[in-house]
Amino acid sequence: MTDIKGIDHIAIVVEDLEEALKFWRDRLGLALDHIETVSSQGVKIAFLPVGNSEVELIQPLDDKSGVAKYLRKKGPGMHHLCFEVEDIQERLRDLESQGVRLIDQEPHVMDDGRKLAFLHPKSASGVLIELYELP
Amino acid sequence: MTDIKGIDHIAIVVEDLEEALKFWRDRLGLALDHIETVSSQGVKIAFLPVGNSEVELIQPLDDKSGVAKYLRKKGPGMHHLCFEVEDIQERLRDLESQGVRLIDQEPHVMDDGRKLAFLHPKSASGVLIELYELP
Repeated sequence: MTDIKGIDHIAIVVEDLEEALKFWRDRLGLALDHIETVSSQGVKIAFLPVGNSEVELIQPLDDKSGVAKYLRKKGPGMHHLCFEVEDIQERLRDLESQGVRLIDQEPHVMDDGRKLAFLHPKSASGVLIELYELP
Repeated sequence: MTDIKGIDHIAIVVEDLEEALKFWRDRLGLALDHIETVSSQGVKIAFLPVGNSEVELIQPLDDKSGVAKYLRKKGPGMHHLCFEVEDIQERLRDLESQGVRLIDQEPHVMDDGRKLAFLHPKSASGVLIELYELP
């Protein structure tokens, strides 16, 4: 049944991207692939690939996003864990039928063809889990 | 300079391992490799490999460990992020010389030859980072 292919990324909420990069890129030595502003979500994201996975540093650009609220409430730190799956639709239906609480009933389809959905931390030991199906 | 080889594991603190496995193993579908009791650290750990990495579920067995205090204060959730490095000694000296706050000045050497050390979250966007050098 398992079609979890691996950890796609681990997302970390930060107050200031440039400041955070001083640690993650300059001191720890991860390579910075690129920085992207996602206006629709009110965030700026730095992508730092590592092994077969990625560290994503997320800075909220306003105080409205979920990420901004998280930062206000809990401070900077690990925000969510993203697994790559083979078939996200099938996986969501399967989880739902087992009583797992979903945040997204249906996957969001991104411009690049990626499909993604979040599970509720209440069902997952307090961890916010994102699922990705890559095109 | 970078010798970070990948994410070795992501550690998640849980209240009850058997209860947590109902999600991570039975519903999400990760394979359970084994469960280990580490009495010296007062924890019980479930190892669930995924892709080239691993999810570790950690349940405190008493109320004295750092993990137990974390659970009491913050509830269940992501606890630390572990990267595999080539040379942990060199890496610790390098980080220290750049002003990164270390929890462990010297690596702990495990029975299986693994060397590990923690960096302080104050230096790493609030994330508790563990470094591993595998034998």
